[in-house]
Amino acid sequence: MKLISSKDNPFYKRLKLLAQSNQQRRKLGQTLLEGVHLADAYLGALGQPLVCVAAESALDNDEVAHIWARIEADRRVCLPEALFEPLSTLVNGVSLLFVVEMPSGRLPASQTTDCVILDAVQDAGNVGSILRSAAAAGVRDVYCMSGTALTWSSKVLRAGMGAHFSLNIVEHCTPDSLAPRLSVPLLATSLQASTSLYEQDLRSPVAWVFGNEGAGVSPHWLGRVQTPVRIPQPGGMESLNVAACAAICLFEAVRQRLS
Amino acid sequence: MKLISSKDNPFYKRLKLLAQSNQQRRKLGQTLLEGVHLADAYLGALGQPLVCVAAESALDNDEVAHIWARIEADRRVCLPEALFEPLSTLVNGVSLLFVVEMPSGRLPASQTTDCVILDAVQDAGNVGSILRSAAAAGVRDVYCMSGTALTWSSKVLRAGMGAHFSLNIVEHCTPDSLAPRLSVPLLATSLQASTSLYEQDLRSPVAWVFGNEGAGVSPHWLGRVQTPVRIPQPGGMESLNVAACAAICLFEAVRQRLS
Repeated sequence: MKLISSKDNPFYKRLKLLAQSNQQRRKLGQTLLEGVHLADAYLGALGQPLVCVAAESALDNDEVAHIWARIEADRRVCLPEALFEPLSTLVNGVSLLFVVEMPSGRLPASQTTDCVILDAVQDAGNVGSILRSAAAAGVRDVYCMSGTALTWSSKVLRAGMGAHFSLNIVEHCTPDSLAPRLSVPLLATSLQASTSLYEQDLRSPVAWVFGNEGAGVSPHWLGRVQTPVRIPQPGGMESLNVAACAAICLFEAVRQRLS
Repeated sequence: MKLISSKDNPFYKRLKLLAQSNQQRRKLGQTLLEGVHLADAYLGALGQPLVCVAAESALDNDEVAHIWARIEADRRVCLPEALFEPLSTLVNGVSLLFVVEMPSGRLPASQTTDCVILDAVQDAGNVGSILRSAAAAGVRDVYCMSGTALTWSSKVLRAGMGAHFSLNIVEHCTPDSLAPRLSVPLLATSLQASTSLYEQDLRSPVAWVFGNEGAGVSPHWLGRVQTPVRIPQPGGMESLNVAACAAICLFEAVRQRLS
């Protein structure tokens, strides 16, 4: 274990950069996971972090101590409370974080399994929720177009609750780089579609594209959609949150494949 | 139309109270709707607001002018930009708001139709998303237990996108006041349940209870659930966002009733 007590320590300065800026995360290829839940999920899915950082006071917390005990000794860094505080975005959170490689997902030569395309979904909570739904539904590949919230930012990581670690997430995709690789039908929801989601055969793999909260799916992708489908909305309020819409679509496929 | 130019104007002072505090909203029984979308949804569903307030500069905006034209003259109030600014929670939004009565929903003597119970769902985005899903699925009654985000706060109103106006929303319910009125089966999701959501007959009305993001459904409600159901999650990630979970459940009922 290493104890850092100076704010001029080079490793500490680097932690502050990672904490303060998504640009730095991208540049350094690393990100921070805050709190016990994400740390536990990461250990379970991917193993040891690059470094585990805890505030001295946090080691008295049972949950933190339990994580700490699973970290190899030379990966443990302890900080006084005053140095930890500027690293955290959580209010009342326990003072524990992992420094981890930010995985750079891979574009396949040919996409033959289910995938989700996020077409400028900008709200961090929505992106995190869709990642959770994808991971739960057994969809492994998520492709993010520009304008989508950075998936490895603190907010999306928190909303994702660990879903990130079982997914192949590719950021900054373009329609031109991705569309030619899709060997599965491309679907999107539309209020004007004549086919109901529930009449659509979803037993074979598909690519779902979900659009921006305000503007919906962009013309770039809409022009490539084979089958627009409509989610019947008997309440007359023709409007669903995009993450709710994604959950309904992804789990209708789960249902059809079970039956 | 009335033009207010002093920050000491009594009506303006009242607007500031409504803008700044959920407690004041509750005390005064009124709330603010910000932006063109909510204003348009309110006009369509419930008619004239108590007052429509616009910044002078906003009247040049076509969308605002279109709303403005639909408001009875004695309900229009215009403010200089500098007075409007402290009333708004929107960054880059158009400077338009409605002052409206905060409807106080009604508890029925006997609940015989579908309803949703929010058991301390605390995230405003989740509450708004669930209200939208309920309104879209044709569920009219939403009962909120304490600990649930205030549904008439700015954030929930924004996330609800107008769903509020077609719902009967009752806040500050207690299990003891609500449970005896339920004449429909009470359902909740549980990872341990043996019945799959997709095997559960949802063709008749039901009451769904959705729980807190961290703690789930409270023992108060869990003890009253007739049928816990499991959402099959083939991906192995046994975790869904509560609003995603609600969307899946409410729309599985929609599907069953269509077929």
